[in-house]
Parts: sequence; C-alpha cells; structure tokens
Amino acid sequence: MSNFTHYSEHVGAGAGRWFKSTIFLSPNMLVGMDCLEPGQAQASHSHAGRDKLYYVVEGEGEFTVAGETRRLGPGGLAWAPADMAHGVVNVGPGRLTLLIAMAPEPK
Amino acid sequence: MSNFTHYSEHVGAGAGRWFKSTIFLSPNMLVGMDCLEPGQAQASHSHAGRDKLYYVVEGEGEFTVAGETRRLGPGGLAWAPADMAHGVVNVGPGRLTLLIAMAPEPK
Repeated sequence: MSNFTHYSEHVGAGAGRWFKSTIFLSPNMLVGMDCLEPGQAQASHSHAGRDKLYYVVEGEGEFTVAGETRRLGPGGLAWAPADMAHGVVNVGPGRLTLLIAMAPEPK
Repeated sequence: MSNFTHYSEHVGAGAGRWFKSTIFLSPNMLVGMDCLEPGQAQASHSHAGRDKLYYVVEGEGEFTVAGETRRLGPGGLAWAPADMAHGVVNVGPGRLTLLIAMAPEPK
C-alpha cells in the first residue's frame, strides 16, 4: 500500500448497488470511497462503536443522520457518530462521489 | 456539534504558523482542517499510535511520509501511519487547504 494516491483512482459504479472501495486501512481507521449513481441510496444503517465521516467530493446528496436530513454538495461534510442511524441518497444528476473515513476499522 | 457542515466554514490563515481547526471529534477520530499559506510548512513529526489522513481540497503540497516525497494537488491523498514521520510544505501560489482525519483522537 502506497502512502500517496488520488481519489479518482478509487471511484467506480456498482451494478444495481452503490460502489465502495478501500484506499487506506489500519486497525485504527478505514479510508475509502462510496460512489452512488443517480437515484442510488445507502439505506439507513449504523456502525457499532464506529464513527463515520463523509466528505462530498462530487455530486449532490441528501444525508440523514439521527433523523435530521440535509442536502450537501461538493465540500460538504456529514458525521455519523458510533451507533447512530445514517443514510444518504444521490439526489443529483451525476455520480455522488464520497470520501469516507471510519474509525476504528470495521471488522 | 452539528452532524453537518461545509469545509469552507473551518478554514483560515495562521499568523506566522499554519492554521488548524477541529470539525468533528470523538474518542475514535478527530476530523479537521490544516491550512498552510504559501511557503508555510508542517515540519516532519509523528503521532504515537495514531494514523493521519490528508486530503487536498485546494492548493499544491509537497508531502513527505517515511522519507518518500510526493507533490499532490486537489483530490490527492496522503496517509501517515502511526508513529511514521511525515510533513508537508505548501509549494503552490495559493493556500493549501487540507481535510485531515486522525484516529484515534489525539490526547
């Protein structure tokens, strides 16, 4: 694993389901990309004991965390604390490209 | 602390030293911004037991991790594993705006 990369090397489209990739991984933290094509969604879910960060690189997403919904475009950030329900829908015309970090690493 | 924000609400310039801000914080992870004006640098340092992610939002930086140096522009990612020496210099004409995540939280 190199210590340097560019997000564009880690994006893609999922057939039927949103796409995810892992960029960096340690026991402390997972860094990756979640990519949603128009209309695709991450249904509401939670991660036991793990915080998750979303950073919007490209596109427009409607994020829900703990029952609050906010539309975020490029540069937007959403934070899903451990055990808290969260989800996202691509509400834009293009791909929703998200940099994500989860800590600690999901098992 | 809201679960939603935009990076541009967390940037700034440091007088004499680079600027940093905290966006989200838990025992698992710190998320924030490091902003370096032209010519400013983070000298080589390391974080005991903590991994650090850099994501280049704006600008051009020369990153060094474990003795390897790479120039990264917008969309670039650098990963400094726990205890590994790393640093960055703003080598561009404008502000170097970095989204960072560190896990676990620095004490």
